[in-house]
Amino acid sequence: MSGSVSPLAPKSFAEMPAVRGVRMATAAAGIKYKNRTDVLLMVFDEPAAVAGVFTRSRCPSAPVDFCRRNLAGGVARAVVVNSGNANAFTGRKGRDATELTAQSASAAVGCSPNEVFLASTGVIGEPLDATKFAGVLGDMTSQATDDFWFEAAKAIMTTDTYPKVATRSAVIGGVSVTINGIAKGAGMIAPDMATMLSFVVTDADIAPPALQALLSEGTGPTFNSVTVDSDTSTSDTLMLFATGAAAKDGQVRINDAGDPALEEFRSALNDLLLNLALQVVRDGEGARKMVAVTVEGAETDAAAKRIALSIANSPLVKTAVAGEDANWGRVVMAVGKSGEMADRDRLAIWFGDVRVAVDGERDPAYSEAAASAVMKEDDIAIRVEIGLGSGRATVYTCDLTKEYVEINGDYRS
Amino acid sequence: MSGSVSPLAPKSFAEMPAVRGVRMATAAAGIKYKNRTDVLLMVFDEPAAVAGVFTRSRCPSAPVDFCRRNLAGGVARAVVVNSGNANAFTGRKGRDATELTAQSASAAVGCSPNEVFLASTGVIGEPLDATKFAGVLGDMTSQATDDFWFEAAKAIMTTDTYPKVATRSAVIGGVSVTINGIAKGAGMIAPDMATMLSFVVTDADIAPPALQALLSEGTGPTFNSVTVDSDTSTSDTLMLFATGAAAKDGQVRINDAGDPALEEFRSALNDLLLNLALQVVRDGEGARKMVAVTVEGAETDAAAKRIALSIANSPLVKTAVAGEDANWGRVVMAVGKSGEMADRDRLAIWFGDVRVAVDGERDPAYSEAAASAVMKEDDIAIRVEIGLGSGRATVYTCDLTKEYVEINGDYRS
Repeated sequence: MSGSVSPLAPKSFAEMPAVRGVRMATAAAGIKYKNRTDVLLMVFDEPAAVAGVFTRSRCPSAPVDFCRRNLAGGVARAVVVNSGNANAFTGRKGRDATELTAQSASAAVGCSPNEVFLASTGVIGEPLDATKFAGVLGDMTSQATDDFWFEAAKAIMTTDTYPKVATRSAVIGGVSVTINGIAKGAGMIAPDMATMLSFVVTDADIAPPALQALLSEGTGPTFNSVTVDSDTSTSDTLMLFATGAAAKDGQVRINDAGDPALEEFRSALNDLLLNLALQVVRDGEGARKMVAVTVEGAETDAAAKRIALSIANSPLVKTAVAGEDANWGRVVMAVGKSGEMADRDRLAIWFGDVRVAVDGERDPAYSEAAASAVMKEDDIAIRVEIGLGSGRATVYTCDLTKEYVEINGDYRS
Repeated sequence: MSGSVSPLAPKSFAEMPAVRGVRMATAAAGIKYKNRTDVLLMVFDEPAAVAGVFTRSRCPSAPVDFCRRNLAGGVARAVVVNSGNANAFTGRKGRDATELTAQSASAAVGCSPNEVFLASTGVIGEPLDATKFAGVLGDMTSQATDDFWFEAAKAIMTTDTYPKVATRSAVIGGVSVTINGIAKGAGMIAPDMATMLSFVVTDADIAPPALQALLSEGTGPTFNSVTVDSDTSTSDTLMLFATGAAAKDGQVRINDAGDPALEEFRSALNDLLLNLALQVVRDGEGARKMVAVTVEGAETDAAAKRIALSIANSPLVKTAVAGEDANWGRVVMAVGKSGEMADRDRLAIWFGDVRVAVDGERDPAYSEAAASAVMKEDDIAIRVEIGLGSGRATVYTCDLTKEYVEINGDYRS
């Protein structure tokens, strides 16, 4: 671990207001780290609606299995998140640990274990000693406050170089509501795995099915459009909770995600999700540059996204960005290998505003100096016009640097 | 470019015998490099049967398009290969260059342009000046000899650190035949692209459809089972030629790839293809270790191969290998993200002969010392048992080192 903060970190952190209906506390349970908080408890004193999106891994962690099961109930009273141990690939012991943690939380908060949600991040293959939670959750429940977002974001960090927080507000039917979110990103060292965790809470009153629809729809162009190195954690978890406290101000409960009253909320939520997702990319291991890859003119939006991911995950494209090299040939290569329809002779490619290739050839007006100037920026936009249809997608990634290899290759040495 | 030879290079090179029916010459046409040969001409004085397998890229180079078209005729009289310029993403000019090169070769050799095959490797997006070939192909045709395999392998190198040659012999119906092959690998620097080219010639008498069937079948577990960084060139080309000279010794022409007389030939050919493919992996940019990933017990062989490629292409697995870290959690991660059926609780993983995980948990007998000893070797075997069926595949890759990033990221600086 270098100990230094990503050069792409935000210059300042958002001031996080309270969200009515949720209280938080953190503690140092000594799961793995010493002298730092490693457990976060979120308490909903009234039942909150809950929605979740999880890793697509076929080998998910025990907490992911646990959350998926409880999601069917649609109601949350407590969330327990720990860093230091992912409780993944821990077999029967892993399932026992989730049960025990949920029992401890339900006893502390006074709810059913079915209303508890769990997430773990850290080393995999090591049994998680869930008895450590039993000793702290009671005190945490009584001490939890509503003004604790920044501390919560810090408690779930593993090797992130900065805490990730975001807040938005919106009006639903004349009533003002707040959305707060925290995330942890793709710190994969020592021997942690890449895991993206994010918890978003609003005081809006939205029924679980509508909340799930909002979250699922919002995830596509945000958390599901960022990639650090194409590797997928066993533990990725994004959850959205709606405490419903705004009902006291007269907000009428929303039961349908298509309700026009949600227009502003939906926009604010998606904006917050994108902000958190980009904070994760900007803290990718060894990242020195952020890259937004936009593909237009593909056969479909889905095809555009697959092409964009092929570009964003290409080691040759990512090393070229690290080298500040406007190597558009590697972009052509990545388009070609995506498997999606493309016609070489219709391709056009831009780095920033500089068109480097058009009609399947180097742009006649190509300027190496202009293209190189773009590559020296911290934030780089790569745009590809396929020329076949109207499919469009943008994905976000970071460069591939020697520091990435060092972080992920040298950590036991 | 470091100028140093890969530590995984063969300790000695095969002695390459002549193959009756093919002559070769090399020349320095000054395509890009100075003071080195950059053109290879292969001449078949009698028409040879030809088979080919090409990149799956949707944006193939002009020579790949050209070869695919001529392959339908099944007959080869000349092959022209150049390094220094890939003639890829060169639009109409690229097609003109292939036509002109084929015209020059057909005039020199005395054949139809439809009997000429082309391959180019090097910079992309730069027009290839095919007039440079016209000046050298005549002399090359008259000077070509049958004892030139090693020089031929050198002429097609770009940033390979060693030439790649292999030879095998086999008996078909009592007649002894030879198979020789050369390859160039995944040197991707300065500003070349990754391109795998390989040309294999036998004096056996085998009809084009049977030859194509042999090659297509042989490519799956060999050239199509190696990966350096998951990136796919626009120019990958593997061709197999059969001169038929063995007919003079009484070898009866083979018309059917299923002919039992081919048993020994098929085995020798596949062995040669695997040897050349592994030489390419062992010369991957920055490679310090070769990794053989075997997946067993998947639902199908195809599923096993997709899982194995997911492991072999994972930057986290590859950096762990570079760091000599027996990080089996990253193997679980890569199995999980492959999208193929897997049951976490049935997985078992070996590094070399050391079983590190079983039944979805760390092996109770796990020894960090034993696993670490395996990781210190040059050649590392990773084996995963999925426990669901009998599907099986092996793929080959190399580690991901800081040198890879340096080679591919720093080359214009």
